[in-house]
Amino acid sequence: MTQQSPTTDSHNTLTPTLELAIDLMSRASVTPEDAGCQETMIKRLEKIGFTVEKMPFGDVKNFYAKRGNDGPNLCFAGHTDVVPTGPEAEWKVPPFEPQIIDGILYGRGAADMKGSLASMIIAVERFIDNNPNHKGQISFLITSDEEGPFVDGTTRVVDTLMARNEKVDWCIVGEPSSTNTLGDIIKNGRRGSFSGDLTVFGKQGHVAYPHLAKNPIHLASPAITELSETVWDQGNDFFPPTSFQVSNINAGTGATNVVPGTLNAQFNFRFSSELDFDSLKEKVISILDKHELNYEVDWTYNGLPFLTRPGELVDAITKAIEKTVDITPTLSTSGGTSDGRFIAKMGTQVVELGPINATIHQINEHIEANSLNQLTSIYEGVLENLFG
Amino acid sequence: MTQQSPTTDSHNTLTPTLELAIDLMSRASVTPEDAGCQETMIKRLEKIGFTVEKMPFGDVKNFYAKRGNDGPNLCFAGHTDVVPTGPEAEWKVPPFEPQIIDGILYGRGAADMKGSLASMIIAVERFIDNNPNHKGQISFLITSDEEGPFVDGTTRVVDTLMARNEKVDWCIVGEPSSTNTLGDIIKNGRRGSFSGDLTVFGKQGHVAYPHLAKNPIHLASPAITELSETVWDQGNDFFPPTSFQVSNINAGTGATNVVPGTLNAQFNFRFSSELDFDSLKEKVISILDKHELNYEVDWTYNGLPFLTRPGELVDAITKAIEKTVDITPTLSTSGGTSDGRFIAKMGTQVVELGPINATIHQINEHIEANSLNQLTSIYEGVLENLFG
Ligand SMILES: [Zn+2]
Ligand SMILES: [Zn+2]
Repeated sequence: MTQQSPTTDSHNTLTPTLELAIDLMSRASVTPEDAGCQETMIKRLEKIGFTVEKMPFGDVKNFYAKRGNDGPNLCFAGHTDVVPTGPEAEWKVPPFEPQIIDGILYGRGAADMKGSLASMIIAVERFIDNNPNHKGQISFLITSDEEGPFVDGTTRVVDTLMARNEKVDWCIVGEPSSTNTLGDIIKNGRRGSFSGDLTVFGKQGHVAYPHLAKNPIHLASPAITELSETVWDQGNDFFPPTSFQVSNINAGTGATNVVPGTLNAQFNFRFSSELDFDSLKEKVISILDKHELNYEVDWTYNGLPFLTRPGELVDAITKAIEKTVDITPTLSTSGGTSDGRFIAKMGTQVVELGPINATIHQINEHIEANSLNQLTSIYEGVLENLFG
Repeated sequence: MTQQSPTTDSHNTLTPTLELAIDLMSRASVTPEDAGCQETMIKRLEKIGFTVEKMPFGDVKNFYAKRGNDGPNLCFAGHTDVVPTGPEAEWKVPPFEPQIIDGILYGRGAADMKGSLASMIIAVERFIDNNPNHKGQISFLITSDEEGPFVDGTTRVVDTLMARNEKVDWCIVGEPSSTNTLGDIIKNGRRGSFSGDLTVFGKQGHVAYPHLAKNPIHLASPAITELSETVWDQGNDFFPPTSFQVSNINAGTGATNVVPGTLNAQFNFRFSSELDFDSLKEKVISILDKHELNYEVDWTYNGLPFLTRPGELVDAITKAIEKTVDITPTLSTSGGTSDGRFIAKMGTQVVELGPINATIHQINEHIEANSLNQLTSIYEGVLENLFG
């Protein structure tokens, strides 16, 4: 019996990883739907000795599964939900009828992140097949709410685990971290994020009678200047300095002879692990107060920063990548937010490692099919390096 | 024959001033229409020895009339056009069918400024009746474009008069200057006005990657702060300090995670007679340049300031008001712009004196009917004081 090519257009020659990826991608699990993805994963995990605990909250399906009773806990984390497809007619293949064409796997979730989920399951199956009495504990933390409001997903599961003192030492989130080639980037942290919606109150009037008006543009401008010029921190070895950006500013009736009554501005912080929400909020308030503004701010808190310094987990991942694809990954904390921030609250070392993110959330989302087979090998290598 | 009451609801007992006011107000001269008003005035002025020169420009009817050949020239200036009526159904009387009800004259143009035109004509008729060989020169400068774009009106007549070295020493513009009671305020000047439409160019980007973006809100904010904090002058005895107001500011896509590419702001200057358009514009540019902005400004120049210092004209007016209504007027340069700014270009001492302005440009524009009889006496008194 000859070895089948791992990438092929013929269904009966698919690798287990691609077969599972295509199974999951065939389910229209637009957030917060799960569409049976988790049940598929659960069945396979139970078969190899995992204890599975379903943790639904509201509309959101979640589960936590674990194998092993002592030693460090390595958790694979991810989500079964996907973003909406956009206009289906613009897709090369129907978005929930995945196909491999010329070695490329097309379909919603290929990169973000049903491909990663398939690689995790197959990697764990193979590792346990080879190491039925492995060291440590292997776990899965899976949600169907990562692309949605992330209220009833990972954050609630983490709260539950923390309440019972469940310890998770290491976590690999399957988010598509790679940029140009599989494994070139691993995210070892993310900046924190929060935003504010500022209203500055003045007094409307006519430009010919400025003494009867209070111009909120004039009042707010020195404060916005100070906020935009403030150096919040210097960052650190892993994070760039904290950044403040005003994304929107609006005041005025449209008439050129009217002094407006209010000004509205929205701003956003991306902050390093040197700072936290409360201290930044306090500093913003002290600047607004210093300028004697009459104002209101609605705060939206998006997440804490987290940072996983080089160590056992990063080493194990780096070696597995080097062995599988012969490149040395770069650590990065850039980009947006992910569920990693919630898991990091447990004191867990969290790293994001997954396929190339070039087409996520887009029409014709796709990845090189073979990269999923390689990702399976990388995940399996990490297990070998830590527990083998 | 007994003296008729000056205010009455019975048409055959109207004073000459009210009769003429009602005649003019019955003509639907919505700007730039004149609807025969000027012809009515011209006929009466020719009858008492004025030389009348029609000066139409484009759609706009204007005339300049003069009596006398030497000595100082006192000009009565005004406009026969009115602003639109708004919804006629909301009027107490049809807007072009003026009526006196309980001593109040209702109709479009009652206050701004057909009432004043009637008072001027009757005052001059009476003065000439009593002083057929008066000193000095009496003139009228009348347009039908004051409420419109003021392009083909007073400014063109003034250009024509200046081209032939016509001298106008004093001018009374019949604009409704009074606030609470007839004659309480005379405007002896107006501030200059101009506005700017500023666009500041940055570079659009994502808030998570601030180093790839240039935030025009951050870039513009220090410049707007400096502009709003600049002391442009101290004003003088007659003008408040020059004022700068940003009327509108807008930037942002609406999304809270996008750094906008451009910022737009509109600003307006009201400036005293200590400054001029060019020097203010230059100073704005130097501030924008100092902050190294990449920007464009569209300038809109609305008019120069003018100022008539106390002197022979103001004295003559003050005495006439004191004699007629027993109050001493206050000098003021507040409020918007008027055609006075164009006449002042001739080196003329310009003063605005007319009825109470409370209802101008509104539904149910009205004034106390008797105040027009008093205004006639005031204008006649000025003629007596200067040329009697
Ligand atoms: Zn994802
Ligand atoms: Zn007017």
